[in-house]
Amino acid sequence: MLSTIGDLGEFGLIARMTARFPHTDDVILGPGDDAAIVRAPDRRVVATTDMLVEGRHFRRDWSGPRDIGHKAAAQNFADIAAMGARPTALLLGFAAPAGLPVSWAEEFAEGLRAECALVGATVAGGDTVRSDSITLAITALGDLQGVSAVRRDGARPGDVVAVIGDLGLSAAGLALFLADSTVGHPECRAAHRRPAPPYAAGPAAAELGATAMLDVSDGLVQDLGHIAAASRVRVELQSSALLVPAVLSDAVRTLTRLGAIECAPVDLMLAGGEDHALAATFPEGTVLPPGWTVIGRVAEGEGVVVDGAPSDARGWDHFSVTS
Amino acid sequence: MLSTIGDLGEFGLIARMTARFPHTDDVILGPGDDAAIVRAPDRRVVATTDMLVEGRHFRRDWSGPRDIGHKAAAQNFADIAAMGARPTALLLGFAAPAGLPVSWAEEFAEGLRAECALVGATVAGGDTVRSDSITLAITALGDLQGVSAVRRDGARPGDVVAVIGDLGLSAAGLALFLADSTVGHPECRAAHRRPAPPYAAGPAAAELGATAMLDVSDGLVQDLGHIAAASRVRVELQSSALLVPAVLSDAVRTLTRLGAIECAPVDLMLAGGEDHALAATFPEGTVLPPGWTVIGRVAEGEGVVVDGAPSDARGWDHFSVTS
Repeated sequence: MLSTIGDLGEFGLIARMTARFPHTDDVILGPGDDAAIVRAPDRRVVATTDMLVEGRHFRRDWSGPRDIGHKAAAQNFADIAAMGARPTALLLGFAAPAGLPVSWAEEFAEGLRAECALVGATVAGGDTVRSDSITLAITALGDLQGVSAVRRDGARPGDVVAVIGDLGLSAAGLALFLADSTVGHPECRAAHRRPAPPYAAGPAAAELGATAMLDVSDGLVQDLGHIAAASRVRVELQSSALLVPAVLSDAVRTLTRLGAIECAPVDLMLAGGEDHALAATFPEGTVLPPGWTVIGRVAEGEGVVVDGAPSDARGWDHFSVTS
Repeated sequence: MLSTIGDLGEFGLIARMTARFPHTDDVILGPGDDAAIVRAPDRRVVATTDMLVEGRHFRRDWSGPRDIGHKAAAQNFADIAAMGARPTALLLGFAAPAGLPVSWAEEFAEGLRAECALVGATVAGGDTVRSDSITLAITALGDLQGVSAVRRDGARPGDVVAVIGDLGLSAAGLALFLADSTVGHPECRAAHRRPAPPYAAGPAAAELGATAMLDVSDGLVQDLGHIAAASRVRVELQSSALLVPAVLSDAVRTLTRLGAIECAPVDLMLAGGEDHALAATFPEGTVLPPGWTVIGRVAEGEGVVVDGAPSDARGWDHFSVTS
């Protein structure tokens, strides 16, 4: 029995994984050739890459292989959605030790497949190599369906700022894992393992005329800072506009009791990353569909201001020495 | 002075690297947003991903950062060319330790830039993360310019088999490094550090009606085995048709004297990988442009036959336990 990917060999591993990925109309040529061929109906393709490193972006004792497959796809599809596009395909770079169980790779592929299915995409190609620890490199492609891409530099004074999707739940889940808390708060743990970005809201926001948009990967305040900088405007937030979910309040109570954090639930919503909510600016008067919450306004100036005070809430800098 | 990428921080590192990458017409939106937007003029995009792991695909004592940048781009652009397409853009996943010198990252980016310039492409986006060793994930995109993609499954009995580009030089260079030989044979060492795929020959072969094509990454015989399998044909090679470069003969003499290898130069041409030559099949009678060498013929049957005998020359299986 071939129980590790080293036993299976490169081509065997590729065959096992690709067998799970269905054909879709967007993928003209899938895995097995030098490169994939993907439809780009409006003569443009949206493309983004993320890397996930074991021990840094995921831990095998906290997340199962399916979770990791879901999350790896989700964070890339969120980037596609944040441009206003529909994800069409995904390429997988899979670096792993030869001793990795075949079942791990298969379950991971199953997670990728399932997250792809949520948006109608599939895995179109990739590469497998050996390495000492698991490193995943995901590239997602997307289709703008004829709309103008929503960049970060289009926010204008007077626009409203709105968000859709979870905020703070993933950070609370991570804090629970870090605190060695092993029971309770399943919603926060699940949000950390498998974020649930509001994919369809991205293209819908583009259709509605969103002037700037991004996905919240590092923290709401930090990420809105990118819109402020790129658009040369000030983003003014009202923290009271953020609706704190009961599951987040409960988790923060536990974390406070454990001495793991010292902050209010709303602080996690402002600073916590990895939920991959979408944050966008819209012209004043835009009627937003259900799910969006208006949390502020764009003004002349620079930076992000929370409740009238410049915020120094910091997100996650991947190379900072202290992180 | 900020001497390591950890000192510089993620956004500083990204700024330093992206400053080197020029704008091109194919890239509608480059680095700095959630995703890049790349032109796909004929409503299809060709996409491929490769990962390079330090210690496995490159060694910092054998190759400098510019070499590694060149090679990382080259092996992906060769995949694009092997479909018959023109490379348009590249996405970079860059995982590295915080202690990596900033200069290393900058020189690496310069190598990427220079290889991109050879084909008119540029770096359109990417991701930087921290990891214990350097792992590179490169995704290349390409434009088929209206031609039919050249896949691996179109070879037909009667077709001629031809190659263009270096064969065996990279393998000889690698063998020299592995044998701790520190002088001589600069062409082979250079070929290992910076392969020189014949990019333009890919789209030209597609225009000429190539029936199957791939880039030689694992070894000529092994890779032609993929065409044989996908096309359900037999590939018959004449090793005497391969023109052995003097620099390869010289290197093999040195390697034999060192006891590092026991084979003829032509064996390295048949089995050595990583030169990223292009191998293709064409209908009989096709007038091939300069640079192509006819090395065999497609017949009914299966597998690859060299000089009349089934070949068991083996390439590189990334997960095999003995490799």
